[in-house]
Amino acid sequence: MNQGLIRLNATILSCGTAVGGKEKEGPLGEGFDLCDPDGRFGQKTWEGAESEMQRLALNVALKKGACKESDIGVLFAGDLLNQCVGSSYGLLSFNIPYLGLYGACSTCAEGLLLSSVLVSYGVYPRCAAVTSSHFCSAERQYRTPLEYGSQRAPTAQWTVTGAGAFLVGDAKINHVGALSAKITRALPGIVCECGIHDAANMGAAMAPAAADTLLRFFKESCTRPADYDAILTGDLGFEGGDILLDLMRAEGVDMTEQYADCGCLIYERKKQDVHGGGSGCGCSAVVLGGYLLPRICSGEWKRILFLSTGAMMSPDSLKQGQGIPAVAHLLELEYAGGVRVYE
Amino acid sequence: MNQGLIRLNATILSCGTAVGGKEKEGPLGEGFDLCDPDGRFGQKTWEGAESEMQRLALNVALKKGACKESDIGVLFAGDLLNQCVGSSYGLLSFNIPYLGLYGACSTCAEGLLLSSVLVSYGVYPRCAAVTSSHFCSAERQYRTPLEYGSQRAPTAQWTVTGAGAFLVGDAKINHVGALSAKITRALPGIVCECGIHDAANMGAAMAPAAADTLLRFFKESCTRPADYDAILTGDLGFEGGDILLDLMRAEGVDMTEQYADCGCLIYERKKQDVHGGGSGCGCSAVVLGGYLLPRICSGEWKRILFLSTGAMMSPDSLKQGQGIPAVAHLLELEYAGGVRVYE
Repeated sequence: MNQGLIRLNATILSCGTAVGGKEKEGPLGEGFDLCDPDGRFGQKTWEGAESEMQRLALNVALKKGACKESDIGVLFAGDLLNQCVGSSYGLLSFNIPYLGLYGACSTCAEGLLLSSVLVSYGVYPRCAAVTSSHFCSAERQYRTPLEYGSQRAPTAQWTVTGAGAFLVGDAKINHVGALSAKITRALPGIVCECGIHDAANMGAAMAPAAADTLLRFFKESCTRPADYDAILTGDLGFEGGDILLDLMRAEGVDMTEQYADCGCLIYERKKQDVHGGGSGCGCSAVVLGGYLLPRICSGEWKRILFLSTGAMMSPDSLKQGQGIPAVAHLLELEYAGGVRVYE
Repeated sequence: MNQGLIRLNATILSCGTAVGGKEKEGPLGEGFDLCDPDGRFGQKTWEGAESEMQRLALNVALKKGACKESDIGVLFAGDLLNQCVGSSYGLLSFNIPYLGLYGACSTCAEGLLLSSVLVSYGVYPRCAAVTSSHFCSAERQYRTPLEYGSQRAPTAQWTVTGAGAFLVGDAKINHVGALSAKITRALPGIVCECGIHDAANMGAAMAPAAADTLLRFFKESCTRPADYDAILTGDLGFEGGDILLDLMRAEGVDMTEQYADCGCLIYERKKQDVHGGGSGCGCSAVVLGGYLLPRICSGEWKRILFLSTGAMMSPDSLKQGQGIPAVAHLLELEYAGGVRVYE
């Protein structure tokens, strides 16, 4: 029985990305649309800067997709800030119905999954998904204010300063200028908690959730890693990525050749001093927009799996002695053929 | 042009509610399934108690709906706590795919809307929506720890201690024992911010969002208040409810006869000392489950409009001088006929 796999027929119409200086200087820097080197985006607060990145990213996506606000049926958005204020303030100026998400760093895939469902099943012709994270707003909320200069653990990850916005359309409609990338299947994740209590090792907390979703997907879809050109997780980082490969191998699935993690790709590990790799809602969003989609749209990759991984704890829940629950949502992305050059 | 209205064909299969002592003592007390008079639900922390209410409510809904975990395609859940930990920990024990929401107090309608879309369009035969709030966890997060004994403003609302869980099924399938209530249409809200900065007057911040959604609904559906037996908002309270009626009247829509607010219904205003009325994600959820659904299922009400209203700020965003953004999602609920007695 097909327990959770959703068949989709959605086209990615466009995307917009905005990042900070560190992300621009990293190996994928050229792929991002907008950058403010000091990460302030003209705002007085870090939270305001994060909101502004979302606004800018969605504006870029609307412009690239040649869409007006009224073309978008509904907007899915969320972020890491308490009460998701990055999204609620950032997208306030858009006259588009808004459904807020909280999936921690899984938000990019969650928003794309729900957008793809709504367009594939004919609810709306077009939907949008937006998410963000900001190093400075995340550090002071989850860890300590930057001014303290706290020392970072080797497994600690670096929250990506970045926002990604995606317009998704019903593939049965001819959208002029749509990208050559389709979302063909999706599998929502099940929350699991495997006894990790260390907020400086979120990769270890999230790896079991990614393994669970991948194993369910391969089983339900009767596919295997070799059927894919690449298998990407959102922000397991170096530590979590190794654990995921081990967990999969223990279940008889070797995906060493196909596997990479957005958090490992976005920075140069040693040169940029990022310890465990990148993380945050913005990590998988900007890597998808700035690096993965161009490779799909060019036909270099015909079919990939993309998972955003989220750690669903709060600073308070950890202080209260709870473990870190995690979730991973999966999307199957395919080259749609045609001649559309990614811009 | 139909800009946002979604036609649905979803049946409410069952619901479960869990509340604290104050809610049980209120005028709707008899309608709730479970109660712990001291609101602790056997847990050491208020956050833990909130999670436990969600777990209990979903268990009741599964039992009443004669459903196993594997019958549910996906679970939509969210709450008011930072990073929505009420939901992520509360529902951790269920082996059901999880899509997290953040809609503040609009979460009940948001979860039901998305559940109804997925079942009506044939993605899954059944979905579930769960939400909660807890007076004690909300007070210390949004205002001050209870031990401070802070004085409350006259317009301040009382966060409902309660959780509601709903199973929703595709109405084209014969679900044995389904309730006689259908979700027939929905309209997602647009976030708006009208200059209210006072966290002790959230009704005023949310009323314009409710008015916007209602006016769009009446226009797009070509209906008027007299077409409905009742029009319910989630938690505008006494202040916000009056403002909503004024805003609607200013647009030529009089709904005085049909209108009520869940936050005004759940407590006895003076006897229970609740100032502005009830609020919180749990408010509209338990009033829907414990009071509105029974009246629909008995045929007393043939058709109602139900809106959950959410204020999307954070304590930090208010300290940074921002106004309160708000959103209201609307559902049209109808008596489904038949003989099913609500239990």
